[in-house]
Amino acid sequence: MSEACIKDSEVDIVIGALQSDLISFMNDWRPIFSRFHLIIVKDPDLKEELKIPEGFNLDVYTKSHIDQLVGSSTSILFSGYSCRYFGFLMSRRRYVVSIDDDCFPAKDSNGYIIDAVTQHIMNLSTPATPFFFNTLYDPYRDGADFVRGYPFSLRSGVKCALSSGLWLNLADLDAPTQALKPGQRNSCYVDAVLTVPAGAMMPMSGINIAFDRELMGPALLPALKLSGEGKVRWETMEDIWSGMCAKVACDHLGFGVKTGLPYVWRKDRGDAIESLKKEWEGVKKMEEVVPFFQALRLPRTVTTIENCVIEIATIVKQQLGPSDAVFVRAAEAMTEWSQLWKKLGSGSPST
Amino acid sequence: MSEACIKDSEVDIVIGALQSDLISFMNDWRPIFSRFHLIIVKDPDLKEELKIPEGFNLDVYTKSHIDQLVGSSTSILFSGYSCRYFGFLMSRRRYVVSIDDDCFPAKDSNGYIIDAVTQHIMNLSTPATPFFFNTLYDPYRDGADFVRGYPFSLRSGVKCALSSGLWLNLADLDAPTQALKPGQRNSCYVDAVLTVPAGAMMPMSGINIAFDRELMGPALLPALKLSGEGKVRWETMEDIWSGMCAKVACDHLGFGVKTGLPYVWRKDRGDAIESLKKEWEGVKKMEEVVPFFQALRLPRTVTTIENCVIEIATIVKQQLGPSDAVFVRAAEAMTEWSQLWKKLGSGSPST
Repeated sequence: MSEACIKDSEVDIVIGALQSDLISFMNDWRPIFSRFHLIIVKDPDLKEELKIPEGFNLDVYTKSHIDQLVGSSTSILFSGYSCRYFGFLMSRRRYVVSIDDDCFPAKDSNGYIIDAVTQHIMNLSTPATPFFFNTLYDPYRDGADFVRGYPFSLRSGVKCALSSGLWLNLADLDAPTQALKPGQRNSCYVDAVLTVPAGAMMPMSGINIAFDRELMGPALLPALKLSGEGKVRWETMEDIWSGMCAKVACDHLGFGVKTGLPYVWRKDRGDAIESLKKEWEGVKKMEEVVPFFQALRLPRTVTTIENCVIEIATIVKQQLGPSDAVFVRAAEAMTEWSQLWKKLGSGSPST
Repeated sequence: MSEACIKDSEVDIVIGALQSDLISFMNDWRPIFSRFHLIIVKDPDLKEELKIPEGFNLDVYTKSHIDQLVGSSTSILFSGYSCRYFGFLMSRRRYVVSIDDDCFPAKDSNGYIIDAVTQHIMNLSTPATPFFFNTLYDPYRDGADFVRGYPFSLRSGVKCALSSGLWLNLADLDAPTQALKPGQRNSCYVDAVLTVPAGAMMPMSGINIAFDRELMGPALLPALKLSGEGKVRWETMEDIWSGMCAKVACDHLGFGVKTGLPYVWRKDRGDAIESLKKEWEGVKKMEEVVPFFQALRLPRTVTTIENCVIEIATIVKQQLGPSDAVFVRAAEAMTEWSQLWKKLGSGSPST
């Protein structure tokens, strides 16, 4: 499988705005973002006007757009970090890159600014290798290759549907870990991209991701909404849930998921100790959620990503629903999401 | 699971000598090897006397020891790279580190000499996490942790049985790749250790490995001997086979396998173009071997590593045997190996 050439016009950068002042965020990303089309979705809970610097090609969506297109009676909630998903619905381009608004361009170990968008596109445009682990990491990187023992029949790889990047400075930890180690910062730059093997589950962080909408679009969805969820990442699990839906679907359909590069520099936001006072709902839920997704296998009759989402929703309702209403709501949100995706024509190619 | 403290006296370093002059090899490794006990096994095909510098605590085994203890009628062949396995049989210490004699200490990205033995011991003495992928790699390294979404019930991890290191300069490629890219050298230092997820197969290179003999000893064995196998790594598959046996056994028994650090600096040896003239037997065999091991599941009644080896041998004979006699011989070697391991008391604790 040869490297696909992705044009800038095939990429949307989707930003969920949880803060009104995006000036320093946008200016820091300007050298990297300015050649792409941006979709900014304002958290519907945010009252202040957005402050966005000039000089970008962008569309801004707010609560009124959400209410108009989705309606207010939906089981899907677009508040907080979930607002970005409205941007995924609105995008008509093949690739989406999405980075949290508390992240800034990081530097690599040589001190050079990392172009996170180009790295994500590289990850998505080169094949993934989920069926056998390559000990030298991504064999498609310059200077790398498949190691001895790697079957030649597997070296063409499969399409990569999802690229999950990492974080320097403030790592993506949960509230208890963050509170326990308030001073810990991630400074280890690991210069690698790897395919997460088929069958292995991972906690995909939504902080810094990219995906192929054609292959995986409807699986990136806001479904698991914790009751005490706030406006800091360590209180949310919506991206972890969505990532496991996407991973199960990728494994089923034969696509790959990569993790590793690119890094972004994550600034501090929120007070971990404050979060600790809330119930550890997300942490507790993972004890049920992870074994569920690890054991989840979809029937062979399911052959599209849309049907993967609907099938997963059905199984979630049956198997996890009885233990907690939060899973019933997640299943309903998934079903409704797949209807919305269809109704709004989100799966249609760019016009 | 807390970090185990491993004493120097619990470690054997096993070196298979494929060349007679070990002077520069041993002197380069002296700062790292000198505090450990070494077992050097001379390739039985090697005629010249070994040249070993003074100042090491070591035992040397040669063809006469092999003939005396194993006999010459065995189906196990200790020639070439397989000679090191005689050292695994002779070791009575808990941990074995084994590094090819064309490898030298590498430098990390800051220019410091890498102590490969200490890194292997670190890998083996901290838990492995095969049941869920941690995107920040080994969570037990300084400065790292489990990421958001990682179930707390899985954070204690499992015992790590096998540590597979990597190579700078000459990577471990197969003969065709080596011949196609004769000038390619690996210069990418990836500062990471990770657990290969349960269920995922990998091509373990034997160039730079360490393992826990108590947990995994009898699974590190010479079984797949290619007919045209020579004295260069890219013509061999015995370590890849052994690694897949070990990985299946680890997955079955609930142990972990780590890959990544430490790196060693691998010097050039052999002529890839010459190797290309031989039949690509190893490359072809992998097309059968990899799917076989990927599908291999052991019965629940198998609860020890010795029985894993015997059971795998039985299934190899049944399922792969009919296609090629090389697999029948591999199965026989495995069965005989497990008998030898028992007969020679290799599984007994250090006296």
